[in-house]
Amino acid sequence: MIETPYLLFLGDAPDQLAAKVAIGIKDWRPENAVGQYRMDGCKADLGLTDMSLTEAKEAGAKTLVIGVANRGGVISQEWKKVLVMALEEGFDLASGLHNLLRDEPDLVAVAEATGRKLHDVRVPEVDYPIANGIKRKGKRCLGVGTDCSVGKMYTAMAMDAEMRKRGMKSTFRATGQTGILITGDGVPLDAVIADFMAGSIEWLTPDNDDDHWDLIEGQGSLFHVSFSGVTMALIHGGQPDALILCHEPTREHMRGLPTYQLPSLETLRDTALALAKVANPDCQVVGISVNTQHMSDEDATAYLAKLEADMGLPATDPFRFGAGKLVDALAAM
Amino acid sequence: MIETPYLLFLGDAPDQLAAKVAIGIKDWRPENAVGQYRMDGCKADLGLTDMSLTEAKEAGAKTLVIGVANRGGVISQEWKKVLVMALEEGFDLASGLHNLLRDEPDLVAVAEATGRKLHDVRVPEVDYPIANGIKRKGKRCLGVGTDCSVGKMYTAMAMDAEMRKRGMKSTFRATGQTGILITGDGVPLDAVIADFMAGSIEWLTPDNDDDHWDLIEGQGSLFHVSFSGVTMALIHGGQPDALILCHEPTREHMRGLPTYQLPSLETLRDTALALAKVANPDCQVVGISVNTQHMSDEDATAYLAKLEADMGLPATDPFRFGAGKLVDALAAM
Repeated sequence: MIETPYLLFLGDAPDQLAAKVAIGIKDWRPENAVGQYRMDGCKADLGLTDMSLTEAKEAGAKTLVIGVANRGGVISQEWKKVLVMALEEGFDLASGLHNLLRDEPDLVAVAEATGRKLHDVRVPEVDYPIANGIKRKGKRCLGVGTDCSVGKMYTAMAMDAEMRKRGMKSTFRATGQTGILITGDGVPLDAVIADFMAGSIEWLTPDNDDDHWDLIEGQGSLFHVSFSGVTMALIHGGQPDALILCHEPTREHMRGLPTYQLPSLETLRDTALALAKVANPDCQVVGISVNTQHMSDEDATAYLAKLEADMGLPATDPFRFGAGKLVDALAAM
Repeated sequence: MIETPYLLFLGDAPDQLAAKVAIGIKDWRPENAVGQYRMDGCKADLGLTDMSLTEAKEAGAKTLVIGVANRGGVISQEWKKVLVMALEEGFDLASGLHNLLRDEPDLVAVAEATGRKLHDVRVPEVDYPIANGIKRKGKRCLGVGTDCSVGKMYTAMAMDAEMRKRGMKSTFRATGQTGILITGDGVPLDAVIADFMAGSIEWLTPDNDDDHWDLIEGQGSLFHVSFSGVTMALIHGGQPDALILCHEPTREHMRGLPTYQLPSLETLRDTALALAKVANPDCQVVGISVNTQHMSDEDATAYLAKLEADMGLPATDPFRFGAGKLVDALAAM
């Protein structure tokens, strides 16, 4: 659990895209983003107040979050000067970088001396249990994709935001490093040891109010041979009541697997639902989330209308047209 | 990779059952078992020659394998005396115990001083790749179960033995600690990090001769919510050409999950085959392996005959009736 709110470290980002994680935090949890810290030459700008460490501390920031990708896979000396100062000012540090904060002896030494925490969100910080399969109270929704990276996190985030707006009880449950940094909490599922994957998702989505929805961030795809085991653990550990099918219609093959075709949405529906019913016999497929970013307005609208007619399910692109239809489907259950 | 042959350490085993791992080594790889080492009060006996460390060394043993479960989850001082002597005599140590050899500072210190290796087969020793899904040469067979612990390892071992007897090219591929200790090699899949599960199985079953069969040890079950992700990774990383359905007909519920029923063999067949075809469109279900240990001879025979008639597949209990029918099915492909 990362202490919020954050000061967002943009470092010497070469462009706006490099600050993707910081942008996600600002878009989805603006209340977590007190300000931004930019070094000389930084080409990213979130439109937040530029703050020194002292100013951010006074404004209540608890954690400096590295919201930018680093160059060349190393934490540079220029960055380190700021990170060390931040620890000495009383900030914890949080990072989703491949090269871990905990592998930098100087940062570890200063963190120990100052009593601050280093959060590497790619690495589990909890000893998860083995899943017990016992039915939990409250409701859970999971996005399952025809492929990896088709918008599953975005879909869950957008549904969570819409549900809060409507006064429904909901919690976004992060299962990847971006989601964990955005919300300050979650399970880095791709780094969990095999035997504990499903148990980590049970831990992440415990008993709750009968009318509360956990919106679980999906990962991988049952049809992506590199990561299908992770998806399977989400389906059985998550015990979903509702599945959202997630799809990107213009993709020509499975991500990173040039000889593998995407399954049809019908095949995804039938495969995922049958497996989900092992853990929750009442599970239903309730809607379709389509990433239409590579389609014209006209094509996207026509595609979604045809999908709705063909499959008898509400279909939308939550980024383009809002998550309302998907939330309506949950509300109707 | 553990150096063979072994001296099998039976310690102060309270009964024969406690030496299960040693029995597996002696049954399946007698050529790996030079002798047994028993301490005072040992109640297990494999019928191998009792040897001192020096005698075993002279007989060519390279590794002392802890073939017995320890009491109370700690490696006792009595055991340690022998283990330290073994390191000093030039043996590596190998263990599948939950408490790791590497967590014992005295064993680590002696191993470093003597240049010997400590193999904890529950812990991966390789940095596995992420699965790439590329089709590999040679053939692969995987056992998939209606539940955990229904005889998947035994089935693969028995088929491998039968195939060697017939002069067919085959390799048993261990994915659990017992199998790894028996053969000296394998992947401890339940301890692999999620993102690398399928890749570890690709690594375990590389390109091979066109007429060579890898007999991959199955794990878990697609229908066991605690471990289904592990099974999924085996199906997609293993790219099987042939699936063997494994079943124990008298079980009343899924192992450790009292409210979960076992699926039918038809459901297992259809679910596993559809998922396996994602990685290998030519995959076939070729036979059924039934653990009939809780059935009379008459009941077992009748049950298997009915299964064969109902499902149109060869069905046998490889422990009771041999693995011949299953190997016939592979040979006919």
